[in-house]
Amino acid sequence: MTAAAPALEPEATIGILGGGQLGRMLALAAARLGFRCHVFAPSPDSPAFDVVHRVTCADYTDTEALDRFAADVDVVTYEFENVPAETAAFLAARVPVLPNPAILATTQDRLVEKNFVTNLGIATAVFAEVSSPAELKAAVERVGRPAVLKTRRFGYDGKGAVECFDVTENEHRDHILKTSRVPATLSQQDTVQARRIAEIVAQKFGYVGVLAVEMFVLREGELLVNEIAPRVHNSGHWTLDGASVSQFEQHIRAVAGWPLAKPVRHGRVEMTNLIGREVEDYRRYLDLPGVAVHLYGKTAIRPGRKMGHVTRVFAD
Amino acid sequence: MTAAAPALEPEATIGILGGGQLGRMLALAAARLGFRCHVFAPSPDSPAFDVVHRVTCADYTDTEALDRFAADVDVVTYEFENVPAETAAFLAARVPVLPNPAILATTQDRLVEKNFVTNLGIATAVFAEVSSPAELKAAVERVGRPAVLKTRRFGYDGKGAVECFDVTENEHRDHILKTSRVPATLSQQDTVQARRIAEIVAQKFGYVGVLAVEMFVLREGELLVNEIAPRVHNSGHWTLDGASVSQFEQHIRAVAGWPLAKPVRHGRVEMTNLIGREVEDYRRYLDLPGVAVHLYGKTAIRPGRKMGHVTRVFAD
Repeated sequence: MTAAAPALEPEATIGILGGGQLGRMLALAAARLGFRCHVFAPSPDSPAFDVVHRVTCADYTDTEALDRFAADVDVVTYEFENVPAETAAFLAARVPVLPNPAILATTQDRLVEKNFVTNLGIATAVFAEVSSPAELKAAVERVGRPAVLKTRRFGYDGKGAVECFDVTENEHRDHILKTSRVPATLSQQDTVQARRIAEIVAQKFGYVGVLAVEMFVLREGELLVNEIAPRVHNSGHWTLDGASVSQFEQHIRAVAGWPLAKPVRHGRVEMTNLIGREVEDYRRYLDLPGVAVHLYGKTAIRPGRKMGHVTRVFAD
Repeated sequence: MTAAAPALEPEATIGILGGGQLGRMLALAAARLGFRCHVFAPSPDSPAFDVVHRVTCADYTDTEALDRFAADVDVVTYEFENVPAETAAFLAARVPVLPNPAILATTQDRLVEKNFVTNLGIATAVFAEVSSPAELKAAVERVGRPAVLKTRRFGYDGKGAVECFDVTENEHRDHILKTSRVPATLSQQDTVQARRIAEIVAQKFGYVGVLAVEMFVLREGELLVNEIAPRVHNSGHWTLDGASVSQFEQHIRAVAGWPLAKPVRHGRVEMTNLIGREVEDYRRYLDLPGVAVHLYGKTAIRPGRKMGHVTRVFAD
């Protein structure tokens, strides 16, 4: 089903595909609003299982489990963009699935995504992967000066209204997001343009939920879209502590058919991921003023695995 | 056990006695830090059941259920001050219970509480119940001018450190907290004095967790303690959206033996309870800038029942 479902009552149950930290934080946001959540995920160790009313631990191709899941929930959303097309179609025939799974066909294929964006009259990045200083240097040499800056942009759509969080500037390390900073060092013109691009993408998709659009800034007024993530995104984690509403609550509101909140930022914000064994150092952040520590309840530490994050808010 | 337990690891399980909105919000705060929660409550409709890893639905006198509960958790805390003494003693013989249940014997009896406070050299209110303007007027006539102002004060203790939230000014309606405002209209001298009183009470108890001390302000420099609540408290709900750390997370940190966070307030804050059928109006708050809506997942609406709350943060 493509359209937004009728607004859910607070006692409704929201189904979440995927049991990682994004699903966990979606469920925590839903709980604030009074909703129950049912998480469907294949791994028994899913961090989201610990914070919800009901869980289904099954493979995404298990139609019997999907059928029971669909019968128990009022709407389905997902924490990751690689939901198998068959799973999405199976569920969508039984219960509203939001955002519209048809979008996944576009964002799962980089070339299709690029063509989609190009057809909107928006420039796309000529290189696909720039996540390290070395890659950036090589890419800049290919593309030419001036230097490339990574940013992300959030747009939403809840039946016409679009609300945006501030542009976020991202710094990667080993292809993994390490630090997000808000506001981004961006001209007023680029800020307006970034917002416009995100809105066009969201509207073209008929999007319901949170959408992250990754862009590069080449020079004043020249923004390139690199990637679209049709879901809540690591670069929006700062909103949990740095804004009056989090990306997770906005997503839940959108898929529930509720009005979006109007985000107000509390100040300058910096979010840093705790990756792999870095999580063992969480204690040194606990008593810093204005700092929030988030741990995802993952039992096994593995290199490159996102284990938690730390947010610092600096009053303006 | 009276002393703070050794610091828990993030994968530990925190047991919570009581399944209302306070237990629910404690569990949500614990989840941010990676903890699992196990809620023990007698009612199958307990709102906290929806957001935790494991639940026990049993009477507080069910020793078999308490025994299994104690075996599953690393520490026990509670959302309400009327935990039966036998329940607390049974659990404390098996697992750390924090705050120290011995405190309950003091706070459950108004006279014992009053004597405890008086023995600390702190003045107590000469009247016990002042929750409405009419009662206030009558009380003021009994006690004399100037007018009485209600405030609450939070103190904490995590192994010596004490952290305090700002003094909160409360307005009651029909004996139920209706609105909290922060900061309270209070002189600098009274603010310092209120903090000192809360710290003395917390230290005298050897307190671990969040403590709410209700005081009246008679005139400049004259504060009277009316009541001590050895738990997270409705008048601290504003901290969820108005501060860098919530009262719920501070409580969880304290009982887990973690360092307390240093709270930073985001601005002037106003928290209003949604009581009984008022909750049906929640939609009108959803799209106000800087406003957060919390619904507790209670299925039955009853007069006087706290169904949710709304917080508004005004940037300073």
